[in-house]
Amino acid sequence: MDRTYIKDTVEKTGETVKLKGWVAVRRDHGKLIFLDLRDRTGLIQLVINPKVSADAHLVATDIRSEYVVEVEGKINPRMENQINKDLPTGMIELEVTKLAVLNKSEPVPLSLDTDGKEIGEDVRMKYRYLDLRRERMARNLANRHRITKFIRDFLDAEGFIEVETPILSKSTPEGARDYLVPSRLLPGSFYALPQSPQQYKQLLMVAGLEKYFQIARCFRDEDTRGDRQPEFTQLDLEMSFVEREDVMALNEKLLIDIVTKLFPEKKIQGTPFPRMSYQEAMDKYGTDRPDLRENKDDPNLLAFCWVIDFPFFEKTDDPPAGGGWTFTHNPFSAPKTEFMDDLLNQTNIEGILTTQYDVVLNGFEIGGGSIRNHRPEALKAVFKIMGFEDERIEKNFGHMLEALSYGAPPHGGIAWGLDRLVTIIQNEPNIREVIAFPKTGDGRDVMMDGPAPATDKQLKELHLKIDAVKEKK
Amino acid sequence: MDRTYIKDTVEKTGETVKLKGWVAVRRDHGKLIFLDLRDRTGLIQLVINPKVSADAHLVATDIRSEYVVEVEGKINPRMENQINKDLPTGMIELEVTKLAVLNKSEPVPLSLDTDGKEIGEDVRMKYRYLDLRRERMARNLANRHRITKFIRDFLDAEGFIEVETPILSKSTPEGARDYLVPSRLLPGSFYALPQSPQQYKQLLMVAGLEKYFQIARCFRDEDTRGDRQPEFTQLDLEMSFVEREDVMALNEKLLIDIVTKLFPEKKIQGTPFPRMSYQEAMDKYGTDRPDLRENKDDPNLLAFCWVIDFPFFEKTDDPPAGGGWTFTHNPFSAPKTEFMDDLLNQTNIEGILTTQYDVVLNGFEIGGGSIRNHRPEALKAVFKIMGFEDERIEKNFGHMLEALSYGAPPHGGIAWGLDRLVTIIQNEPNIREVIAFPKTGDGRDVMMDGPAPATDKQLKELHLKIDAVKEKK
Repeated sequence: MDRTYIKDTVEKTGETVKLKGWVAVRRDHGKLIFLDLRDRTGLIQLVINPKVSADAHLVATDIRSEYVVEVEGKINPRMENQINKDLPTGMIELEVTKLAVLNKSEPVPLSLDTDGKEIGEDVRMKYRYLDLRRERMARNLANRHRITKFIRDFLDAEGFIEVETPILSKSTPEGARDYLVPSRLLPGSFYALPQSPQQYKQLLMVAGLEKYFQIARCFRDEDTRGDRQPEFTQLDLEMSFVEREDVMALNEKLLIDIVTKLFPEKKIQGTPFPRMSYQEAMDKYGTDRPDLRENKDDPNLLAFCWVIDFPFFEKTDDPPAGGGWTFTHNPFSAPKTEFMDDLLNQTNIEGILTTQYDVVLNGFEIGGGSIRNHRPEALKAVFKIMGFEDERIEKNFGHMLEALSYGAPPHGGIAWGLDRLVTIIQNEPNIREVIAFPKTGDGRDVMMDGPAPATDKQLKELHLKIDAVKEKK
Repeated sequence: MDRTYIKDTVEKTGETVKLKGWVAVRRDHGKLIFLDLRDRTGLIQLVINPKVSADAHLVATDIRSEYVVEVEGKINPRMENQINKDLPTGMIELEVTKLAVLNKSEPVPLSLDTDGKEIGEDVRMKYRYLDLRRERMARNLANRHRITKFIRDFLDAEGFIEVETPILSKSTPEGARDYLVPSRLLPGSFYALPQSPQQYKQLLMVAGLEKYFQIARCFRDEDTRGDRQPEFTQLDLEMSFVEREDVMALNEKLLIDIVTKLFPEKKIQGTPFPRMSYQEAMDKYGTDRPDLRENKDDPNLLAFCWVIDFPFFEKTDDPPAGGGWTFTHNPFSAPKTEFMDDLLNQTNIEGILTTQYDVVLNGFEIGGGSIRNHRPEALKAVFKIMGFEDERIEKNFGHMLEALSYGAPPHGGIAWGLDRLVTIIQNEPNIREVIAFPKTGDGRDVMMDGPAPATDKQLKELHLKIDAVKEKK
């Protein structure tokens, strides 16, 4: 007999079915034993009556919570006074004729019949494989999949090609801190894990791909603060022969479609998304990520907006341009057209506005992008303003400048923080709730107990020595 | 005016259109200048007649190969004697009325109008962003996208959920060599890049997900040999409540659908896929990856087969079980049912057959998987046979044994080498041809010049020192 999913039992009253799943609860009422059986589609009550099957009743006697079972029986309507209106299968129950244990379970170390919010995160993380059994977590992963699938279908239909770019990449010292990967074949040298596929996607535009996207893993070795993870996921996207309006329009349509098609119960506060300049946002809201929701208690309200016209540069005290300039968002961005001469001439630096666009949702920046400099002299001018010597520009960005010299098309793109978007849509308090196996705040995996010391053999092969590590107080 | 893609021009004879793209070839016939314009959809001939537009003619005079241009004009039928039957747009040409250069190009350092097979790979890799402009490479990337999209659509329709598992993972010393990532927050400790999501996908089965898949990046730090890459891509898949036949049937259907729906010009030699035991394969073909093609000269012939019934263990001279046993495929596999008692009792070790199934295409193993041990005592018995002490088992696999003790469902899965599958379908000689930015044989990225030395600041933050590196002879 083929297995039936529990959600489908409601349409099979009177039929005999086979179910498989986990025992959520066992209640022994003397002669009758009741089991709540759970699979990934729902929950159903099983009734084990020794008069129907003495064998099944014997098996059920030893069953405990989280045992894995296979069961056959007839779906009966429940008696009127036993109907449970809170459960989709609350009108029916399964009268068990066969029952087999597929695997036992030790008593689980954390409760699985709540949403888990009352349980300490360290316990939840250590037993993540149990924590994910709770309905809230299963729904978060399933909806993350649905959102990601929708994005892929949408962009594929728009003619985009998904391309995988390297994870073993090269360090670019101008961003946040990189994770490094020692090379064994080239001892003393290191790969870096990408903070984003920024350079690769621009090189794919130089390659003539015209429409690229990727659901891309990104890495930043940041100090523990707030709601960050060492690795996170971006929707990364780049288009050729476009202007700012083209990229913004495509992304706005995609965001609206995700909400209206997948989450019809949600309400977008305003379409088209309101737009404001960085200056307006700061003047009016004191932040460039304003939360425009008119009713912050409404869990289904989504208030998107675009923030544009950011300054390209800001003063910095960091070397090499101590007292000089650094970029506010992305060194590869183009200025707004009317400021291109200023960029090339390195004049009116504080006044240059970038083509950058940020998309904000309920007070969180969920994405940002820009039109890029597709001419090498413009990209070089950015590094000049930042005070870089020619040698350093050549060393770190020579390949990009050279690539732009071989017929780079005008192009621009965006990256979304996918974890954050899913978190907000799912009304979760932090991104760890929508990541299958997140790290703790200090980057530990308490389930597998990583990171861990390397063996002497590994260190020797990599030509590495651990430098004296001071004990933390 | 909206931009028209070149492939769509064939249906627009007599219309005025705007095109954007790259100049593939420029031919100056005195008064008339001819340009071949390329975009990602095709190639079309432009005619620039000074009598039609003196401005355009002036612009065209300075244009060289790989310049990026925007052009407007009328699509005219070509004269009979000028029709090019080898080109989809060979019946027409564009009479240019407006022409603008969007970006210039230096003379490119490698020819782009061939398939590139005659060019040294180092040059192709250094200028990968140009190499990818050639039609062959663009088609490889586009078809890789189509195959991957098809897999995702198929599995989504079958109820699978794609879940992202960590890239910053933990080293498991029993596999191939890991890439390590030093932790800054926990100095002296290291993450490892995953060789596959094997443990995570099994933990997702313990979590009750039932049907998981992922297009997953995997990493192995192997010595340079053959057609390997430091990072590669798997279709990774796991299912609960299944037996060997279920996983094989699903995968066989998916492979057949990919070929018949996306590549109707290809011919599958035999369906259902032939099956043979490991012993039969070795006896008959002397290999467990037999190439069953009846006509090896037919580039459209695909001969799939399954190889099953592998020995679980083989003798090894490596520690810790010097002269003892190691697994042939995967320590997490279950034996065939009739050998479970042998496994648990550690008897008849050489005779135990595993549930492993490999899928072979044209002499290459393109995938492999198994039903897993879902009971902790069976998994532990595998490590016992391999001669591991209890302490080592607990240290390296304690979390897996514990996870299996909390109601792990019966489960199994598979992993495909996606790069290899695409390579064979595209009739390419090696996987680098279907990877956007591959590494060289010794793991170098000659485009970005990585890996590269770390800065003193980076090493200090990671508490690392480079050990004396001997010069290679």
